[in-house]
Amino acid sequence: AMKGVTLGIAPDARLIDISHQIPPQDVLAAAFVLRHAAREFPPGTVHLGVVDPGVGTARRPIAVATDDHFWIGPDNGLFSFVLNDARVYHITNKALYSPRPSHTFHGRDIFAPIAAHLCAGLDLAAVGPPIHDPVILPEIAAQKSAERITGQIIHIDHFGNLVTNIAAADIEPWGTAVSIRLGNYVLTGLSRTYGDVAKDAALALIGSIDLLEISVNGGSAAQRFGIDRRDPIVVEPTTGR
Amino acid sequence: AMKGVTLGIAPDARLIDISHQIPPQDVLAAAFVLRHAAREFPPGTVHLGVVDPGVGTARRPIAVATDDHFWIGPDNGLFSFVLNDARVYHITNKALYSPRPSHTFHGRDIFAPIAAHLCAGLDLAAVGPPIHDPVILPEIAAQKSAERITGQIIHIDHFGNLVTNIAAADIEPWGTAVSIRLGNYVLTGLSRTYGDVAKDAALALIGSIDLLEISVNGGSAAQRFGIDRRDPIVVEPTTGR
Amino acid sequence: AMKGVTLGIAPDARLIDISHQIPPQDVLAAAFVLRHAAREFPPGTVHLGVVDPGVGTARRPIAVATDDHFWIGPDNGLFSFVLNDARVYHITNKALYSPRPSHTFHGRDIFAPIAAHLCAGLDLAAVGPPIHDPVILPEIAAQKSAERITGQIIHIDHFGNLVTNIAAADIEPWGTAVSIRLGNYVLTGLSRTYGDVAKDAALALIGSIDLLEISVNGGSAAQRFGIDRRDPIVVEPTTGR
Repeated sequence: AMKGVTLGIAPDARLIDISHQIPPQDVLAAAFVLRHAAREFPPGTVHLGVVDPGVGTARRPIAVATDDHFWIGPDNGLFSFVLNDARVYHITNKALYSPRPSHTFHGRDIFAPIAAHLCAGLDLAAVGPPIHDPVILPEIAAQKSAERITGQIIHIDHFGNLVTNIAAADIEPWGTAVSIRLGNYVLTGLSRTYGDVAKDAALALIGSIDLLEISVNGGSAAQRFGIDRRDPIVVEPTTGR
Repeated sequence: AMKGVTLGIAPDARLIDISHQIPPQDVLAAAFVLRHAAREFPPGTVHLGVVDPGVGTARRPIAVATDDHFWIGPDNGLFSFVLNDARVYHITNKALYSPRPSHTFHGRDIFAPIAAHLCAGLDLAAVGPPIHDPVILPEIAAQKSAERITGQIIHIDHFGNLVTNIAAADIEPWGTAVSIRLGNYVLTGLSRTYGDVAKDAALALIGSIDLLEISVNGGSAAQRFGIDRRDPIVVEPTTGR
Repeated sequence: AMKGVTLGIAPDARLIDISHQIPPQDVLAAAFVLRHAAREFPPGTVHLGVVDPGVGTARRPIAVATDDHFWIGPDNGLFSFVLNDARVYHITNKALYSPRPSHTFHGRDIFAPIAAHLCAGLDLAAVGPPIHDPVILPEIAAQKSAERITGQIIHIDHFGNLVTNIAAADIEPWGTAVSIRLGNYVLTGLSRTYGDVAKDAALALIGSIDLLEISVNGGSAAQRFGIDRRDPIVVEPTTGR
């Protein structure tokens, strides 16, 4: 339905699906997937996200401009990973909505029309007033001290790989001389790729989106470790101990 | 495969996926999803549906023209929701098929070529003779009297919302002063959106496609009520009782 | 992410999804689906496949040219069904990769850029040197003698239909006078389509991709026969017995 609305307003828009497999109302999963797929797209791309448990309530519809992309959706943390240095607008210009918008499907009635108008050249500031307090998810950043980084699992992919919120750049000073604790398990060192360890062995590596990940070569780390999203993970340097 | 065939005939066709998640052979689910997504698309759109348990038997392939859209697929009820006032043609012009069409995949060998030829400008009447008795699913309409509307659940969405075949327009004369029975449960009144009730509370509302829906705020109404598709639902006015 | 990369290099590329439902690391399933969808696409199509359990190890990235299509992905058997008479190149030209390619997501960092450059007109030989020993899956061909064909189930579709690696052309000399053994079951004769047998009855037919298939009319042959992929199936002529 959203694609139909979009093509009615912006017939030449290229429509690309990022994911239709976000669990219902899981804003963190959507925020993660959106961020890491979206950053590969060309400048000027308009990203539309609708994981929107608060639809029809007081939660604001927002439009976000980063250096080279636009982001349209609910103000519920969905764009947490890009809100640094972003300009954020509260969508209030009803002239841009679909006629008679529903209270339960703003994706179709508000976000898709706004996204399509942006594709067709609308100035972002036309959507409504700027705001400075968008909702940001607490899970986006790990805590770092000189002795350790304390983060959490923020994504479990299709293969059972555990993606953390710990950035490669934060571990880099310690090189690969690290120990990694999750639950009752400790992994030592960082691998380069899955095949660096034996089949069915666990490993830690810097994944393709520059975050620390825990994997099992040819298997599922989620099953192996019995780990859920938001479970804690701690990285400490082993050098000099 | 159908997309490949389409692009071979109509290289400039825009291809949009509506759904790949219709349960096998579930014509009602497909008819519902197709109808409600399709109505958002621009005039001239060609809709192709292949939920086709009777493929290769005597069931007819058909092409349907409504005011501003075309619909191509099997004559098994898939287009029930748009057949009012539609022109319907029996596809018999084998010159438009793929060479050596299979008996088990008319989506690829008949429907996709026809849809592509329509995109490329073919006159609809070229597909075959008009017919006047297309198959229509019994589930498309609720029964209405002065005292009550008796309908059924025709769709359960990704979130567990229960969508009925009872139209907003039929309830409108009673306003929100209605009682709604499904199974052993009775709901009173109509809400505007999910957040109008407490978390985990059930509600009835007019959904985004102008049909009566039963939901649970932040949960699954399908689980809460133990309801299946085609289960009955009754709406009665409470005013004056 | 791969689509974003592709559009950055080849803004006019048409992007078509074949499948996102290949089980993790199941090269045979991917090879099968890719082959049979891909052959419907117009000449010049670039096919990109990423089922890639060996990513980051010594397995080669390859680019394949058949008569009228290109195929980009890992050298793990994914293109087994088209390697006959194909030209195969080992992708080694790092100038065509994304900057700083990861060790775990060559789909994004190597295959998508190469595919996009081909869409934009790159000469295939620019990707690297030709090779003559690409990996070919053993499952692609059945064994045939004068008395029987011994094959296996290589695909179980959405409906539970069992697709074999036995080609229509190999059975053709025997007509429909065949007996087909799988597990403890024997089916006799070939049907033309599902509706040729009673509801819930089993049948054998030549499917839409010219391979022998076992089906249940209105049901799942996989459930009926308790059969898994790679289980054997034997076809013998009944004439003259």
